[in-house]
Amino acid sequence: VDQTGIKVQLSSYRRSIDNIDAALVHILAERFRCTSQVGELKARHRLPSVDKDREAGQFNRLKSLALEAGLDQVFIENLMRFIIDEVVRRHDDIAAVSGKSAASEKGSIA
Amino acid sequence: VDQTGIKVQLSSYRRSIDNIDAALVHILAERFRCTSQVGELKARHRLPSVDKDREAGQFNRLKSLALEAGLDQVFIENLMRFIIDEVVRRHDDIAAVSGKSAASEKGSIA
Repeated sequence: VDQTGIKVQLSSYRRSIDNIDAALVHILAERFRCTSQVGELKARHRLPSVDKDREAGQFNRLKSLALEAGLDQVFIENLMRFIIDEVVRRHDDIAAVSGKSAASEKGSIA
Repeated sequence: VDQTGIKVQLSSYRRSIDNIDAALVHILAERFRCTSQVGELKARHRLPSVDKDREAGQFNRLKSLALEAGLDQVFIENLMRFIIDEVVRRHDDIAAVSGKSAASEKGSIA
């Protein structure tokens, strides 16, 4: 294979990777839409932003899905930790805003 | 909304999140299949595992996709950094194995 052949092959793989990344961004956007709704539901009913049992269940399920798909389980665990930490941060933001508006509705300045 | 209503609503959101996560795992598995092929091509032709220009292009594109999809750009940047670091680690592993087998084909013990 000459240099041009390598470049053609490489840019073909990269087109696939770019398509997959666009899909990843959109699927993550949808995931955050769902988790925002969870965050709003939790804030409205003053439920805690973290649910350790739910998380443990998610991690176990994801690790078995990763195994099945031939993905490194530790990698998926770390990646999901990263995503879930962002979700919890957003839940706390939603709860803070919701708490403030609830407080202001009651005329509180606290 | 009573406690049962909240639970029903929450578990409906969670079913969507679980479906999305299964999709994420499978799409990531496909992404690593593509990047492994890139890793093998690079190792075969002794190309460096990191390509800073390619990475810069990927990050710019992803940030504009994130903006369009209503996702936090810093979050996507950090998430992709995490995934790409894993890819580079794998490329280095492939290159190391390939280097060893190339060496052993030549009868080298180095």
